[in-house]
Amino acid sequence: MGNPNDTHTKLVPGAAGFLLQDVPHFTDYLDHLPSYPNPLQNNPAYSVVEQYFVDEDDTVTEKIVVHKESARGVHFRRAGPRQKVYFKSDDVNACIVTCGGLCPGLNTVIREIVCGLYHMYGVRKVLGIDGGYKGFYAKNTITLTPKFVDDIHKRGGTILGTSRGGHDSVKIVDRIQDRGINQVYIIGGDGTHKGAAVIFEEIRRRGLKVAVAGIPKTIDNDIPVIDKSFGFDTAVEEAQRAIKAAHVESESIGNGIGLVKLMGRYCGFIAMYATLASRDVDCCLIPESPFYLEGKGGLYEYIGKQLKQNGHMVIVIAEGAGQELLSESLQSVDQQDASGNKLLQDVGLWISHKIKEHFAKKKMPINLKYIDPTYMIRAIPSIASDNVYCTLLAHGAVHGAMAGYTGFTVGPVNGRHAYIPFNRIIEKQNKVVITDRMWARLLSSTNQPSFLKPRDIAEAKKEKYPANGILDGKIVKTMSMN
Amino acid sequence: MGNPNDTHTKLVPGAAGFLLQDVPHFTDYLDHLPSYPNPLQNNPAYSVVEQYFVDEDDTVTEKIVVHKESARGVHFRRAGPRQKVYFKSDDVNACIVTCGGLCPGLNTVIREIVCGLYHMYGVRKVLGIDGGYKGFYAKNTITLTPKFVDDIHKRGGTILGTSRGGHDSVKIVDRIQDRGINQVYIIGGDGTHKGAAVIFEEIRRRGLKVAVAGIPKTIDNDIPVIDKSFGFDTAVEEAQRAIKAAHVESESIGNGIGLVKLMGRYCGFIAMYATLASRDVDCCLIPESPFYLEGKGGLYEYIGKQLKQNGHMVIVIAEGAGQELLSESLQSVDQQDASGNKLLQDVGLWISHKIKEHFAKKKMPINLKYIDPTYMIRAIPSIASDNVYCTLLAHGAVHGAMAGYTGFTVGPVNGRHAYIPFNRIIEKQNKVVITDRMWARLLSSTNQPSFLKPRDIAEAKKEKYPANGILDGKIVKTMSMN
Amino acid sequence: MGNPNDTHTKLVPGAAGFLLQDVPHFTDYLDHLPSYPNPLQNNPAYSVVEQYFVDEDDTVTEKIVVHKESARGVHFRRAGPRQKVYFKSDDVNACIVTCGGLCPGLNTVIREIVCGLYHMYGVRKVLGIDGGYKGFYAKNTITLTPKFVDDIHKRGGTILGTSRGGHDSVKIVDRIQDRGINQVYIIGGDGTHKGAAVIFEEIRRRGLKVAVAGIPKTIDNDIPVIDKSFGFDTAVEEAQRAIKAAHVESESIGNGIGLVKLMGRYCGFIAMYATLASRDVDCCLIPESPFYLEGKGGLYEYIGKQLKQNGHMVIVIAEGAGQELLSESLQSVDQQDASGNKLLQDVGLWISHKIKEHFAKKKMPINLKYIDPTYMIRAIPSIASDNVYCTLLAHGAVHGAMAGYTGFTVGPVNGRHAYIPFNRIIEKQNKVVITDRMWARLLSSTNQPSFLKPRDIAEAKKEKYPANGILDGKIVKTMSMN
Amino acid sequence: MGNPNDTHTKLVPGAAGFLLQDVPHFTDYLDHLPSYPNPLQNNPAYSVVEQYFVDEDDTVTEKIVVHKESARGVHFRRAGPRQKVYFKSDDVNACIVTCGGLCPGLNTVIREIVCGLYHMYGVRKVLGIDGGYKGFYAKNTITLTPKFVDDIHKRGGTILGTSRGGHDSVKIVDRIQDRGINQVYIIGGDGTHKGAAVIFEEIRRRGLKVAVAGIPKTIDNDIPVIDKSFGFDTAVEEAQRAIKAAHVESESIGNGIGLVKLMGRYCGFIAMYATLASRDVDCCLIPESPFYLEGKGGLYEYIGKQLKQNGHMVIVIAEGAGQELLSESLQSVDQQDASGNKLLQDVGLWISHKIKEHFAKKKMPINLKYIDPTYMIRAIPSIASDNVYCTLLAHGAVHGAMAGYTGFTVGPVNGRHAYIPFNRIIEKQNKVVITDRMWARLLSSTNQPSFLKPRDIAEAKKEKYPANGILDGKIVKTMSMN
Repeated sequence: MGNPNDTHTKLVPGAAGFLLQDVPHFTDYLDHLPSYPNPLQNNPAYSVVEQYFVDEDDTVTEKIVVHKESARGVHFRRAGPRQKVYFKSDDVNACIVTCGGLCPGLNTVIREIVCGLYHMYGVRKVLGIDGGYKGFYAKNTITLTPKFVDDIHKRGGTILGTSRGGHDSVKIVDRIQDRGINQVYIIGGDGTHKGAAVIFEEIRRRGLKVAVAGIPKTIDNDIPVIDKSFGFDTAVEEAQRAIKAAHVESESIGNGIGLVKLMGRYCGFIAMYATLASRDVDCCLIPESPFYLEGKGGLYEYIGKQLKQNGHMVIVIAEGAGQELLSESLQSVDQQDASGNKLLQDVGLWISHKIKEHFAKKKMPINLKYIDPTYMIRAIPSIASDNVYCTLLAHGAVHGAMAGYTGFTVGPVNGRHAYIPFNRIIEKQNKVVITDRMWARLLSSTNQPSFLKPRDIAEAKKEKYPANGILDGKIVKTMSMN
Repeated sequence: MGNPNDTHTKLVPGAAGFLLQDVPHFTDYLDHLPSYPNPLQNNPAYSVVEQYFVDEDDTVTEKIVVHKESARGVHFRRAGPRQKVYFKSDDVNACIVTCGGLCPGLNTVIREIVCGLYHMYGVRKVLGIDGGYKGFYAKNTITLTPKFVDDIHKRGGTILGTSRGGHDSVKIVDRIQDRGINQVYIIGGDGTHKGAAVIFEEIRRRGLKVAVAGIPKTIDNDIPVIDKSFGFDTAVEEAQRAIKAAHVESESIGNGIGLVKLMGRYCGFIAMYATLASRDVDCCLIPESPFYLEGKGGLYEYIGKQLKQNGHMVIVIAEGAGQELLSESLQSVDQQDASGNKLLQDVGLWISHKIKEHFAKKKMPINLKYIDPTYMIRAIPSIASDNVYCTLLAHGAVHGAMAGYTGFTVGPVNGRHAYIPFNRIIEKQNKVVITDRMWARLLSSTNQPSFLKPRDIAEAKKEKYPANGILDGKIVKTMSMN
Repeated sequence: MGNPNDTHTKLVPGAAGFLLQDVPHFTDYLDHLPSYPNPLQNNPAYSVVEQYFVDEDDTVTEKIVVHKESARGVHFRRAGPRQKVYFKSDDVNACIVTCGGLCPGLNTVIREIVCGLYHMYGVRKVLGIDGGYKGFYAKNTITLTPKFVDDIHKRGGTILGTSRGGHDSVKIVDRIQDRGINQVYIIGGDGTHKGAAVIFEEIRRRGLKVAVAGIPKTIDNDIPVIDKSFGFDTAVEEAQRAIKAAHVESESIGNGIGLVKLMGRYCGFIAMYATLASRDVDCCLIPESPFYLEGKGGLYEYIGKQLKQNGHMVIVIAEGAGQELLSESLQSVDQQDASGNKLLQDVGLWISHKIKEHFAKKKMPINLKYIDPTYMIRAIPSIASDNVYCTLLAHGAVHGAMAGYTGFTVGPVNGRHAYIPFNRIIEKQNKVVITDRMWARLLSSTNQPSFLKPRDIAEAKKEKYPANGILDGKIVKTMSMN
Repeated sequence: MGNPNDTHTKLVPGAAGFLLQDVPHFTDYLDHLPSYPNPLQNNPAYSVVEQYFVDEDDTVTEKIVVHKESARGVHFRRAGPRQKVYFKSDDVNACIVTCGGLCPGLNTVIREIVCGLYHMYGVRKVLGIDGGYKGFYAKNTITLTPKFVDDIHKRGGTILGTSRGGHDSVKIVDRIQDRGINQVYIIGGDGTHKGAAVIFEEIRRRGLKVAVAGIPKTIDNDIPVIDKSFGFDTAVEEAQRAIKAAHVESESIGNGIGLVKLMGRYCGFIAMYATLASRDVDCCLIPESPFYLEGKGGLYEYIGKQLKQNGHMVIVIAEGAGQELLSESLQSVDQQDASGNKLLQDVGLWISHKIKEHFAKKKMPINLKYIDPTYMIRAIPSIASDNVYCTLLAHGAVHGAMAGYTGFTVGPVNGRHAYIPFNRIIEKQNKVVITDRMWARLLSSTNQPSFLKPRDIAEAKKEKYPANGILDGKIVKTMSMN
């Protein structure tokens, strides 16, 4: 039986520098657990599949850009169905919970967990937890059947409802026990996974045969290790509308500025990709790249120059950009009118206000139009590619839980779905690396100044090379596809 | 020669209570003007048209719901090509100007004035005035040819640029004279038409042979007499996205409120039609229908009730709704933080703030998501039906100007395009009549309270029956199609 | 009591040439029928409406372009709620049936009949007939409640199902009697209305108090009298996608021809409006305007010329265009291969084949891409403006039936909803008048030849002026908005 | 100096079974070639990029699912900018050609080659070849500048025009020499790459310093090695419209069948992914999976069963599915009517005909609606994610050519862009492996029979394991992401 404290350290070495970062399994802490043949092998749809089951030894490489003499590096356990499962279909009592903000594709993931469990494994008991983690304490749950979820992927939002917070893991595990639940599917981001890790530890501490599977959800794409989060492509696609509108508005009036705020509290992926896809943007501001307003090389100067040259411009700002400037700025104003200040904490409203103020002082009339499409982006149904992606995620999670894995998250690593230990998801966030090629490509496409001072560059470089050599592979990857 | 002051009174009576409210014509104030056969009669595309030209006596009825013994009431001159024109094609020197806010379809109107003049009348000189009325003073103009405008209807905005204000009519007419312009096409709303009327009077005072044609543009649909303004259907269509997103957001979270602000400074047509088309809205607030927040029958009470019953709701608010409340409310707060207050002048931000504040005080947690899709709606290209409508407007204007009419606006009256004297467009605004059936239908569909106090109803009814009996026909019409 | 045979002749004259073409009413053939106060007067949503009920004497003018001494012409009874109704709410037993091809907006009409009956009149019994007229003979019906229909307007198609034919009116009326149905809402086109008229006559013959209300449905816009059919604007909008694709395909390849077939068996409205809205079309072929392929002024010559000049072209063809040519052409080929011939009865496939054949013979390589978007257009949900229109239609029908009118169709006449006797809907079809201005405008915009021979023009003109002077007003109207 | 015949065999072995399949380089066959520092190092946009240039030793792993003792397998040279380039910016004379069918994203690739050359490398001479390979023989070319291509990514199609065939490589290389072109960017599929390989060999034979770079284009996703072809996600997304329409049509009528033909001459990826994304499809037929019509387990039986159970169904068929059946079937019919037969070579029309015929014989009335959205899908602009992908492809190609690589194609391998030798692209096509999990997932989601006979399964399995062990990695990968 395993030690409940070592979830983070299930490492298996191999030849030529190979390292497997494995995920927990029931057998780590439960003895004499029976296993069963996977019911899929009798499923007619799978009868033609020659080698349907994933080989127990299959692993997925994290490091993909290598030299001919490189060490092979970190690997993850490949996702997919196993020859043996650790649940009888009739005994499974699954539940699904969605946490945090909306993201296109949530309903598809829910649908496919339900349909996957039913159609692949013959599971009949699936509950929806209502309204996020805190729904575990509530009375009402939703009975989920393939019929009930049949059309939900065509709708935005989450039919289960969601909320933030509510991680009283002891109480949650109590309710899981009370209800006899033995598979918990948790769809959420960073914070949600932290909660899931604690819930998993508590379950393991109590020695329960309850699988905890995370499905990574973050519209911002700030979850590390995985290639890209579901809903991200949908969000970037929908953001094009707002940018297009900003472009039209700015072009139709003298000194027109179209300003679009996009999602991204801690990372600027949506802003960056939306800018690259659109090509109508003249300036993209993200949390990872500090900027300043006044003086040489500052934002005001760049705006002034652009308006003089072209008569109009489009700015995209991620919601988390310029937070330092913003808090400085708000501290200096009168604190009495709380509501006004509160509004200015929206970086889009704040920077609109600052830009207008600056050019009013300069007696240069400008026409700034501010667009915040956040909720219009989050709430749409996912595009087809995200739909297929969500299906794979959901099935991966179901296969893993049925096979007795637990305390894992599922997601694509270099294009292949894998099981990733929670700690790799939680310990840091995925960020745009501004000393890498993708950001350089953006700067080159918008022609904006880098806004960087030597100090910032140094800092940025430091971040790129964390002490822990194992981790850098991923960050480099996302940033430098080309 | 006519009297420059009587533009408003060109009335022609007929049998059985018939009255024609006619538009000015060059021959009203210019003697011995030669006329020419309309070049369209040699156009191969029109060779099959049996009775292509509008009969001089054709008029369009304003009053369409009648009793069997009714007086026939007001009529307008029918729009369309005339047998005789007052310009030789080579002598025409036309210009086009767009004023005020963006509206889907602007580029289509521009395109079709240019193509109409070229292809129907063989006119070769068409100028675009850059950036609204004040562009008349500027040096640069844009040469407009069919090739140049070929694809512009596929883009939102206006290729000519626009601006607000700038009505120095004497200076404008000076520049019109300097440039030898003899046809002026002015695309704009209420204020723009007031400017156009003054420009027309100045031109007439100077005895110039310069036609002034207005094309009514108002995304809000606040221009009277005409059936519906171009871009309106496009705007209502696009508004559905925002309402849908608000609906999804509100449903996905406990006590979710989706709040959407739509255009409509003085009238609530977009809000009303978008609400009726969507059916996901629980409350629609417009400028014409006063409401109050606190107490029995107030907005807070209704919100509380809805959340208790359904757990979520969608509110649509027109930008001009609740202005009285808002100004009271802002006067009472500390004036020091100008920027915060300024933001709160946006009724959507203000009411979001008020609702949050109220329920915070009540210790009832709510989740309000505010969506302002204004610029995303204004900036899109027009839908097909608006495209066709814009074509008819543009051609109507061109036919009228070529035929020597001036000081007129063109637009559909009960489905037929007509020439309408400026004063009818300017003297009052089209508004939602809240004592009429369409608004009742809305109240019935949303189930919201009427928010009306007896005083309000009395006032509303007064407005419906202005002293001038001639005018009421139209208002009643728009409101009670069924 | 009325005479069952004179439904077509309920005419009421008035002053100055006024004529009301009225619709039947229960009191025409049923004596001593009690009436009741309209429950709407106690509805809170309508409490502010000053003059909610339609004045009994209100009529809607059909003839809208008049001269100052004109006769006033034909009028229809205005649609809307009446002070008195002829049903107690609890006694109403309504049914809805949808017939013929799909059309965007069908579900909205269904929804609003159900919701209108429930919310406005407190009616609780509404049945859906399954699969068109023949569903009356079937066992299963669908119970319709506001909850059941709540979201159906967001989906294309008809939730009731539809079919063609099935008019055994005696059997249908038997079933209506069996089920105790007393309000029949029939949504359909030309043929469906012919069936409705016979059903109505049978009901009247039997002296039943059963209201028969038609809601005109025709995606082709071929129903006369009414301004425009619901779904038409949606269809024209969606057709733009196909035209755009045809344009791109044709431009991207040498001698590219993009050919798009659009709906319109007997009339070319969709093709004409889609062409006008798009401006990317070089040739539009409709049933009303005969054309020929070979020789001078023929289609081949025009195609050849266009390809030489521009290298590409777009052709739009209505499904009913060129039927004469097609049947000639098919008779001349070998009849043995029925299936091939059958395919060629699709005018789009046929003309593609002919064009390819012609230019192959000429040794001129062309690249023709044929697009048939018919089902992709029919099956979408309606756009917002059609949604509102459908609501008004449904409510108009409900108000009429409740007020005891029967044997009527509802629809907008010059912008106002009116009750129209069945015979006016059935006796002829709405068609594009090719000797009128709208078609001339199209020819001018595409630059295509008229394809007309003197004989055709003469015929077209004859059609425009039918013997029955009463009818021509409408045809002229639709065609010459400007 | 290299041997011109060994392009296919540039293999570099490494440790632990590592093998690099390298691409040709100028220095393989040209001696004493000068190189220059990459101008990017002075580009301000790149000044913050710490390690902008790709390490000469970077390679990308093809085999990503491994065991802990696996051999490391095949690798490709990583794409991206190099420290040294083999062209002076002023000396570059580039050309771009697009070949084969339309694919969303073509214009983005063109745009980004032009902008990449200009903005990254200061290249000023870029020509567009008009109309595919045969455009090399034509006189007219298109001068491409950043301004000219600025907005082209918003349009579908290719601004350069395209065509099929035209590979007279000797003549093409003559013209390349005549015009002094030294970089040739060829955007096209399988056949186009075969042409490119011959052109490259001819160039190498003549010892010219002309770089030949392929950009893989195939809407069907049939190009091997790379992860996914550009435009594929856009195509799958747009295909949803057609499937949705088919679903609505089929549901709205008794025994309704919606049949959608999608692209895929030799492979069924679009059909498979569109089916998985939609979940409204009951049967998906692709070229890789043979099927039969009659008898037990055949298509007719399945259709009959579905209609009996649900009353409607949706079938998706790839254009290349069932080719064997089709040719048998056509041989047996009368050959006289060539045109009819020709139409039936469209598998969608053919199978519609067969299904109708079958059920007519069975006296079971069905309503089949056939939708062919092919051109409506191909001709749209690409979605945002494809836009970004196209940018990376274009830049990868530019970096490679500038760095002296030639005879290569660029594309993502496991998420990282790499340079791939032509032979790997040409020698076989990417196909759906029907003995793998993705296809099993599809069968499970549609519930359709596998239509397989034992013989077919055996054959399919054989294909999966080609003699050449090196190649199978990729195929397996695409098919079994999960």
